[in-house]
Amino acid sequence: MSIAPTPPSRRPRPTDQADVRRHNAGLVLAAVTDGPVSRAEVAGLTGLTRATVGSIVDDLLAAGLVSEQGTRAPRGVGRPGTDLALDPSGGAGVGVEINVDGLSCVVVDLTGEVRHRASRPGDQRDKPVGTVLRTAARLVDDALRAAAADGLRVRGIGVAVPGLVDLEASVLRVAPNLGWADVPVLDRMRAASSLLWPRASLDNEANLAALGELWSGDHAWPAAGASFVLVNGDVGVGAGVVLEGRLHRGTRGFGGELGHLTVAPDGPECRCGARGCLEQVAGLDWILRSAGLRPSSAHGADATPTLLAALAEGEPRAVGAVEDAGASLGVGIAAIVNLFDVDAVVLGGVYAPLFPWLEAPVRAAVARRVLSARWAPISIAPSRLGRDAAVVGAARSALREVLTDPLGAVAEPA
Amino acid sequence: MSIAPTPPSRRPRPTDQADVRRHNAGLVLAAVTDGPVSRAEVAGLTGLTRATVGSIVDDLLAAGLVSEQGTRAPRGVGRPGTDLALDPSGGAGVGVEINVDGLSCVVVDLTGEVRHRASRPGDQRDKPVGTVLRTAARLVDDALRAAAADGLRVRGIGVAVPGLVDLEASVLRVAPNLGWADVPVLDRMRAASSLLWPRASLDNEANLAALGELWSGDHAWPAAGASFVLVNGDVGVGAGVVLEGRLHRGTRGFGGELGHLTVAPDGPECRCGARGCLEQVAGLDWILRSAGLRPSSAHGADATPTLLAALAEGEPRAVGAVEDAGASLGVGIAAIVNLFDVDAVVLGGVYAPLFPWLEAPVRAAVARRVLSARWAPISIAPSRLGRDAAVVGAARSALREVLTDPLGAVAEPA
Repeated sequence: MSIAPTPPSRRPRPTDQADVRRHNAGLVLAAVTDGPVSRAEVAGLTGLTRATVGSIVDDLLAAGLVSEQGTRAPRGVGRPGTDLALDPSGGAGVGVEINVDGLSCVVVDLTGEVRHRASRPGDQRDKPVGTVLRTAARLVDDALRAAAADGLRVRGIGVAVPGLVDLEASVLRVAPNLGWADVPVLDRMRAASSLLWPRASLDNEANLAALGELWSGDHAWPAAGASFVLVNGDVGVGAGVVLEGRLHRGTRGFGGELGHLTVAPDGPECRCGARGCLEQVAGLDWILRSAGLRPSSAHGADATPTLLAALAEGEPRAVGAVEDAGASLGVGIAAIVNLFDVDAVVLGGVYAPLFPWLEAPVRAAVARRVLSARWAPISIAPSRLGRDAAVVGAARSALREVLTDPLGAVAEPA
Repeated sequence: MSIAPTPPSRRPRPTDQADVRRHNAGLVLAAVTDGPVSRAEVAGLTGLTRATVGSIVDDLLAAGLVSEQGTRAPRGVGRPGTDLALDPSGGAGVGVEINVDGLSCVVVDLTGEVRHRASRPGDQRDKPVGTVLRTAARLVDDALRAAAADGLRVRGIGVAVPGLVDLEASVLRVAPNLGWADVPVLDRMRAASSLLWPRASLDNEANLAALGELWSGDHAWPAAGASFVLVNGDVGVGAGVVLEGRLHRGTRGFGGELGHLTVAPDGPECRCGARGCLEQVAGLDWILRSAGLRPSSAHGADATPTLLAALAEGEPRAVGAVEDAGASLGVGIAAIVNLFDVDAVVLGGVYAPLFPWLEAPVRAAVARRVLSARWAPISIAPSRLGRDAAVVGAARSALREVLTDPLGAVAEPA
């Protein structure tokens, strides 16, 4: 017996020069991302030699990812420097979200800005799968044309769906709230598109929402290296788990299924076949019904604005419905914190506008049910991206490889 | 706005030569760990040049971690090689477990073998903290003397406790089942010891049990790189979460608190202050009481053998108690799988001998409550180390740094 007899195929490879250069190219691009900087400043920020920085910058200029912004007087001693900046037209990502209550699509450029946006609201549950996917494909075609018209080179397409995704096969295994099973979403969308697609990927909406939040740069946290969970509330409830700055997908990409956590073992039946799942007592349909409103499922009309108006007026039935949902949601969030010990929980999707009414019951459940609450207070906050987090995250996800491994990404055929 | 504006302090450092050499030394030691090998074979296994391997092996020989085992005829072409192997006396780790129902201690050598073992069974809840820690310190002193008598150089001491550990301060923040709070366990044990200690660390028992399982090498899985959860059952219930071959401690080391997951929101009160925690309806005390036996808490006598005898005879009350606990445990395990999406769940501690009676209700709950169960069947198995996992894991944990970063570990003062 020996300790950790790592099989040869699993052993880490020794680091070689090509890996080091690709890694360092990511560091250089990150330094340039933060704002106009000279080559000398990039060397200072990264700890790389000026010669290495110069050679990598040449490659990034050639790939169109970085542009020169003219010379300026030196800040300290030395020759005048030429400022470098990220070239917004160097790359763009297309994001598409297929959700129970509508479809949406965005184009995001290399600096993170949304350059194009389109949506098709309406309940998708009563429509055939093919109809929904053809509409989604048309949204992508429109986005690709809009990007080309803007001179943006689209590097990738990300598609967000509300269910379990088999990442290797790019198949949506199950989406209980849509009633879909084993749908090869990307293949069918590609077949319905009239354009040639760049690389595309399919992922769970809560995972992409968490990545959208991680990369948003809009607020002080989640900082790089942080651990947080984004809880995405809609008809279904999902969680995207970011541990030490990386999305935790789980072995098969099936992690974060918060909506099917048992919070009431003898509670109502769920579409997944189990009983007492969180989304049955904290999802949007449950909240709307408890508030005396018609769930969005019935006729495609979104009752959420009516709910928000009732809450703003302090209508007791609406307030009580959201507070009850918050108490159940708090049990689920306490489970997440007990198991993962994250720094922060971000409430996204419809939970973002509902946050003022959810906050107190969620905090009470966490204080009571999290063993470490006394020693490790966690931050609980609404998502800044709100219901846009998943679609923006999908677009940024499609761009991510360009940013972390620019030399590898541009070397591959588009 | 920009995507991922990593602050300078958080940026990854460029790789330098000294890092590469230390990393490569770990690769060489791992190759040697797998069995007698020549320098040329190490070069073949690791992809490093023979010159690099030769230089690193010289350092490992000087540190006493590796020994030469005489020459042998070459397997292929070339000169005869000198076989290298791990030197068992090159390092040892001491593990100590402080648990509700007793103390135990082991010495493990560099090849993973247990070379010394001692225990002090008996309920620790009625004893003053100082008495318990003095007994634990005496176990360590005996272990250090036994290791010295065997010519083993102890590189570190690992201490396992049943509660939340502040890793940086080495303080046990709370152990609800012992009734301890804010105890600087290592400082007090060191003060009670008559010997000079090598480096020591304090950790949660379920975390160390999971590491013990990961490094046991006794069975085909959990393989290197695997994701699994070890559920450690005792009076309390804890979980050690291993993701992609690494222990997930959480931001503050407070992760894996499965015992305080809410499985019955209106259930019995827990010592932690909440209601309906898993360990109140699946822990050892609950099982014993439900089986009509006196919990081990009452008089220090361990009723577990009586329970196991009753189960073996098919005594209905005992079987019913364990099956009911299994149904509650299954709700908790389903939550873990829904959230983490691991390959396997290992039942350790007292759940290992109870496994034949727990298995069916746990599997039924997982099949029903895990959304991905149809596409991603998970392995559920008893721990091979059983109740020894935490103390053996603690000892191996103390040796781990020597194995992964041998040049760094031996360069530091002992």
